[in-house]
Amino acid sequence: MTEFRRLRVALLGAGAVGSQVAHLLRTHADELADRAGAALDLVGIAVRDVDAPRDVELPRELLTTDADQLIVGADIVIELTGGIEPARSRILEALNSGADVVTANKALVATHGPELFEAADQVGATVSYEAAVAGAIPIIRPLRDSLAGDRVHRIMGIVNGTTNYILDRMDREGSDFAEVLADAQALGYAEADPTADVDGFDAAQKAAILASLAFHTAVPLDAVHREGITAIDAQTIAAARGAGYVIKLLAVCERVADGDGEAISVRVYPALVPREHPLANVRGANNAVFVQAEAAGDLMFYGAGAGGIQTASAVLGDVVSAARRHIAGGTGVGESTRANLPILPVGRVQTRYQITLEVSDRPGVLATVAGILSDGSVSIATVEQTVISEGNGKPGAARLVIGTHTALEQNLGDTVDRLAASGVVDRVVSVLRVEGD
Amino acid sequence: MTEFRRLRVALLGAGAVGSQVAHLLRTHADELADRAGAALDLVGIAVRDVDAPRDVELPRELLTTDADQLIVGADIVIELTGGIEPARSRILEALNSGADVVTANKALVATHGPELFEAADQVGATVSYEAAVAGAIPIIRPLRDSLAGDRVHRIMGIVNGTTNYILDRMDREGSDFAEVLADAQALGYAEADPTADVDGFDAAQKAAILASLAFHTAVPLDAVHREGITAIDAQTIAAARGAGYVIKLLAVCERVADGDGEAISVRVYPALVPREHPLANVRGANNAVFVQAEAAGDLMFYGAGAGGIQTASAVLGDVVSAARRHIAGGTGVGESTRANLPILPVGRVQTRYQITLEVSDRPGVLATVAGILSDGSVSIATVEQTVISEGNGKPGAARLVIGTHTALEQNLGDTVDRLAASGVVDRVVSVLRVEGD
Repeated sequence: MTEFRRLRVALLGAGAVGSQVAHLLRTHADELADRAGAALDLVGIAVRDVDAPRDVELPRELLTTDADQLIVGADIVIELTGGIEPARSRILEALNSGADVVTANKALVATHGPELFEAADQVGATVSYEAAVAGAIPIIRPLRDSLAGDRVHRIMGIVNGTTNYILDRMDREGSDFAEVLADAQALGYAEADPTADVDGFDAAQKAAILASLAFHTAVPLDAVHREGITAIDAQTIAAARGAGYVIKLLAVCERVADGDGEAISVRVYPALVPREHPLANVRGANNAVFVQAEAAGDLMFYGAGAGGIQTASAVLGDVVSAARRHIAGGTGVGESTRANLPILPVGRVQTRYQITLEVSDRPGVLATVAGILSDGSVSIATVEQTVISEGNGKPGAARLVIGTHTALEQNLGDTVDRLAASGVVDRVVSVLRVEGD
Repeated sequence: MTEFRRLRVALLGAGAVGSQVAHLLRTHADELADRAGAALDLVGIAVRDVDAPRDVELPRELLTTDADQLIVGADIVIELTGGIEPARSRILEALNSGADVVTANKALVATHGPELFEAADQVGATVSYEAAVAGAIPIIRPLRDSLAGDRVHRIMGIVNGTTNYILDRMDREGSDFAEVLADAQALGYAEADPTADVDGFDAAQKAAILASLAFHTAVPLDAVHREGITAIDAQTIAAARGAGYVIKLLAVCERVADGDGEAISVRVYPALVPREHPLANVRGANNAVFVQAEAAGDLMFYGAGAGGIQTASAVLGDVVSAARRHIAGGTGVGESTRANLPILPVGRVQTRYQITLEVSDRPGVLATVAGILSDGSVSIATVEQTVISEGNGKPGAARLVIGTHTALEQNLGDTVDRLAASGVVDRVVSVLRVEGD
């Protein structure tokens, strides 16, 4: 048996992910040592309450409530407590004492990433966060390393399992949002307070992280345009289906021409995706990240986006890599944010749209609608009108589905406002972007 | 502008991939320096004939026929000449002089990987080969690093674009093998001598590389069981389609229980894949690698499996990583082959089968066939009999499609031999494994 150098691993947090990480570190110790070239000694687990029930039984003597004490002397610190504080301070403390840090904390990386990376660079250590985006799916390392010699043009990610589960069931069953959400909550796919998922906050954090990596630019969370899925109803999904689309909550990170140079756009919203697109077939709570790069062409990474044990796999991959670096010597490789591209406001983004309106079914309405679109520099690609109700003498109601050519978000918004106020439109049912065609 | 340390990059080979690598190194020099934290100076390109026509124009002064001279003093050597010699000697020469090596040479890595990795370890350098498997798709690094803390149970890969193109067209058009092959050759998807692709040699090299990485075990190429697709005809594809399957040439790498311990099996053959499996939708010349791991669950990596510029993306990712290591200091991280699992002979592999027979349509035939299967310890799961021709007085002909439960490859082979010799079977049409259900 090989005699390995021993590394001290401190774990902060023993929730769904943490308890699995602790379990795997202990039960797979020999294998992990073989992979890492170093024995990974779990020296302690910091928790809030040593007596709380856990998903996996952990040895009582490893549990402590003193996280700060545990960090002292650790070679690798795994932060799985979540939230900004005290996670941020503890990570900085660990880095300053020379430890490598592994975290799954997407909120922290999305908001304080540059501070953490800077602190790591100062001491030649690393902060790894593969588990922060898309659970078990390797996406951080491929973007950071495998595509480091390429230019990413565009990422479209299904990075929130809860909303994909809800939209997929709505699509397959024709059910309404509230109904599926309640079911998802009962089954544990959605939290009691579903805001972080259904309003797109979680996806926006992941979008900021992906865009920062892909475009070598620090993307602050508040630069991510965000819309959730709560306004998507069964009728909108059925209409999308009829037109050959499926609705997915997408994190879109895009490199665009901007005058003589380039800029990036980062946005999260429900979008129409053609049924034949690889992302359209991502079912249930799964995640997938579709990447378009200049040389590599189209790539897709698919798998489980959440789950304690799945996320633990990503955490342990980072832990083994950190251990290898300890053994190999040398400093950690920092994040490259040297491109520092400007971030485009959402109003200047260009996409195609599908606008669904309820209008009076009488002569001249389509001409009025078309005129308003034309005045707003929004060019019509397709129109479909269906009668909703006969008027019995008075004008009936019709549904108008308008597909546009590429239009500027700002023009589109202004135009939709003018349609709503025009007198011929009873209701703006939905305005959705079309992505991936 | 940041002042970077300069690294000397030597390129061996200027074919489809090499010329694109040279082009990107020169046109994207500033960006690559930003990513790597070092300027990557392309100091020369070794070619056989400096006057040969190239896909991309390259400056004449960089071309040389003296590869050995070029290697001297290089920090990073990119080997894109292919074949075993002189590629092997030159890589060893480069490693011994302390350079990091990046290669796309699957034949060399599959046959001489351990020798190269050992040489790299001796001097603390690295051999990277992301481009050797599945072109632009990041799969080497995810297996090596991202899944380093997990246990891979199984890989199913579509790793040869030519055969996937042929099988996909046969499936979609109902055409025969020879016809589609000729077309693929005319379109440049298949070589004039298609043996390496259609007989599975190329896929077997990639399977050996994937299995070595996934199971931390040196898998020699001759331990890979290999069957090609030349026997797959339009009728077999149509029957598979009718049964809800698509036929794909798969590289299967599997960890199996073996007595008290574990063993691995590595095999390449055309297999029936259920239409709803993610691999079933991999179209045209694309590649995809489906990975099942203990903690991560199911993952899939999808993209272009070949092409000069696509493969160049993978090469440059490795080059940037090698450059970062140079700047960070420390030694390279070697390949972990410490698990050293035994490799199961194919006779001891267990899978499900679909056996298609032509039999005489007369009483007692099914009983005889069922008896032979039962004697051979092959358990029947499904049987479907269809009449091929009426006998007009004499016995007609029928087609019998038998789905088995999991059976031992060796038992199955013996049983099929006995069926062929039984007198009631006119022809064994096909014996295909079922994977992924």
